[in-house]
Amino acid sequence: FPYTATYEESMDKPKIATCTAPVNIAVIKYWGKRDEELILPINSSLSVTLHQDQLKTTTTVATSRSFQEDRIWLNGKEEDITHPRLQSCLREIRRLARKRRNDGDPSLDLSHKVHICSVNNFPTAAGLASSAAGFACLVYTLARVFAVEGELSGIARQGSGSACRSMYGGFVQWIMGQKDDGKDSIAQQVEPETHWPELRILVLVASAERKPVGSTSGMQTSVQTSCLLKHRAESVVPGRMVEMIEALRRKDFAAFAELTMKDSNQFHATCLDTYPPIFYLNSVSQQVINLVHRYNRHYGETRVTYTFDAGPNAVIFILQQHVPEFVRVVQHFFPPETNGGQFIKGLPVKSASLSEELKRAIGLEPMPKGISYVISTKAGPGPRIVEDPAQHLLGSDGLPKETV
Amino acid sequence: FPYTATYEESMDKPKIATCTAPVNIAVIKYWGKRDEELILPINSSLSVTLHQDQLKTTTTVATSRSFQEDRIWLNGKEEDITHPRLQSCLREIRRLARKRRNDGDPSLDLSHKVHICSVNNFPTAAGLASSAAGFACLVYTLARVFAVEGELSGIARQGSGSACRSMYGGFVQWIMGQKDDGKDSIAQQVEPETHWPELRILVLVASAERKPVGSTSGMQTSVQTSCLLKHRAESVVPGRMVEMIEALRRKDFAAFAELTMKDSNQFHATCLDTYPPIFYLNSVSQQVINLVHRYNRHYGETRVTYTFDAGPNAVIFILQQHVPEFVRVVQHFFPPETNGGQFIKGLPVKSASLSEELKRAIGLEPMPKGISYVISTKAGPGPRIVEDPAQHLLGSDGLPKETV
Repeated sequence: FPYTATYEESMDKPKIATCTAPVNIAVIKYWGKRDEELILPINSSLSVTLHQDQLKTTTTVATSRSFQEDRIWLNGKEEDITHPRLQSCLREIRRLARKRRNDGDPSLDLSHKVHICSVNNFPTAAGLASSAAGFACLVYTLARVFAVEGELSGIARQGSGSACRSMYGGFVQWIMGQKDDGKDSIAQQVEPETHWPELRILVLVASAERKPVGSTSGMQTSVQTSCLLKHRAESVVPGRMVEMIEALRRKDFAAFAELTMKDSNQFHATCLDTYPPIFYLNSVSQQVINLVHRYNRHYGETRVTYTFDAGPNAVIFILQQHVPEFVRVVQHFFPPETNGGQFIKGLPVKSASLSEELKRAIGLEPMPKGISYVISTKAGPGPRIVEDPAQHLLGSDGLPKETV
Repeated sequence: FPYTATYEESMDKPKIATCTAPVNIAVIKYWGKRDEELILPINSSLSVTLHQDQLKTTTTVATSRSFQEDRIWLNGKEEDITHPRLQSCLREIRRLARKRRNDGDPSLDLSHKVHICSVNNFPTAAGLASSAAGFACLVYTLARVFAVEGELSGIARQGSGSACRSMYGGFVQWIMGQKDDGKDSIAQQVEPETHWPELRILVLVASAERKPVGSTSGMQTSVQTSCLLKHRAESVVPGRMVEMIEALRRKDFAAFAELTMKDSNQFHATCLDTYPPIFYLNSVSQQVINLVHRYNRHYGETRVTYTFDAGPNAVIFILQQHVPEFVRVVQHFFPPETNGGQFIKGLPVKSASLSEELKRAIGLEPMPKGISYVISTKAGPGPRIVEDPAQHLLGSDGLPKETV
């Protein structure tokens, strides 16, 4: 945490800070809590932090003697600040800030209310885990305003479980911990974002018909009803965490990719074993899965891997050199609505040719408009401070700027 | 086995017999072999035998000094008799017949070749387990021709695992057994077909785009790759067998129905946990599942249950009194291609009204032509002998009659 408030600074400057935080995508999945209040998981998990150039949340927090109450605006709309998980994060940050003041810093007036304003640079409808980026950004920004340092992932976790993993860049594990108070249930960086520069990430945004079951209620039902989930958490995931960390350290793409697919599939298997069953994979997702396996089989090696969270969108990991061809394959089997211009967003993708042989080897029936667009990205850093005051989302009056 | 050959009969009459056998649908699923040769399963299973008035296989077996070789015709087409599973059944029946002759019956000339002719009264494309009915019928008919009596399910099992359950009517368990030679891996009737006369069965034939992965190779891959399947077989199914048998004895529809749904879902979960994953449930299947849960939720009780084998077709169990309304619900949410005249085949279904309230409570988007037709049936008896010689599928020349 690079920022340290001096006494003068704290007294003179308006207490306002703006930060950004990333989305993360789990390759060893988190599904199920052992403690709903503290958000303690039934197994450890591991994720890749996506680059904020493509996907990020930006949050401004201001605190002032003049504010009458805590308030929050999300994507331009004021929301209910009394949401229990928001309150958990505010309470925990204030608790740490108080502890810090007891340690000798007199500059913070903790009775001041906060205004929070947060926006995503991607549509919530994209089905990406916006709550992870959102709570990570909230906690990171609150911590800056309240001059709180140190381990913050345990607080982000109390906003949204997977948010703790968005507190770090690169490859991040969320260690489930053993303690009842959750103090040891925190995120840790396994490898930094610079570790595997050849790794590319493609988010295939499926054209979903309707909103699937939410993950909070979904995982509750799974914990209550799926005996396969219990077995997975206790007997399968511990070994997979070790395997995954090893594969990442070695940059062993095939090992990483296979384990990623298996773990995604097992997570969705436990959703199906839930009663009533939960389906997150639709026919587009199934087609993506079949396409990836046939693509890999054609080359006789695992060049591409998929993972799916609680929705139909595929997240694809692939080495840079194979991206152009694979994107062509996706475009062929999911002919887009547009002429392709806006089909690929994010990191540019070179054009490539697509052989008849490969098309034949995959041999699926094309699904027109099955995929709305593709976000091309890579692993990226953790939360960042935005130093430019022009970027604050709250004006000097403590209200969202009109541009938000 | 009601037929006992006398010496005179055996010598004078042509050795020909025609029998029918039923399809069965598992409510505790069989998926995975511990021995591929002997077809020994990794867990016990339990099924309901469907009534032959709607779904059956008819098989004629003839044996004659004049036949040059063993031959088989399936649904009008001659097939390869050297298929290993056919050979297993032929070998085992001949072995039993030989044993019988050694016991004192001189009438059988086991050097005679057999001609086999078999037809289904339902399209193979319906995705029903035609191999179960087929091998059950083959073994039952061969046994009659060779005058073999006693336990035959262990032989049918060697043709197709689930065929052993088609050797009995009503509610049938396949006890997995423990022995390496498979002698204790046999089917047993749990309750006869007369036990639960109110129970009705609806086969919802989904309009599938393409043939899914076959069950033989699918279950091999599952056994090799799914750790959830191993757990299911070892730790989940034994308790469920006890529960299911108890629910059936009590005719406790809700208990039977919930366990049936859970076990179907868990089987499909293990398919998804297979690597590469196997999908048998398509969007039509998912819609049927959602429809059933919403229907039950609307009434606050479990009135309907589904189960799916290795394909997208739903098999529905429901008490007679609820059939008319539920069929209307199915027709509403899967508007058929036809005017409804041929949408329901089999046991007649009374008309019923469909309330706006119920439609709203289910609240799914209708999927036109998602279901091709519905077969209305009930639990039925085991294999039967066809006494009328006019029904033989083979003529006096030992070749299929032209009408076949």
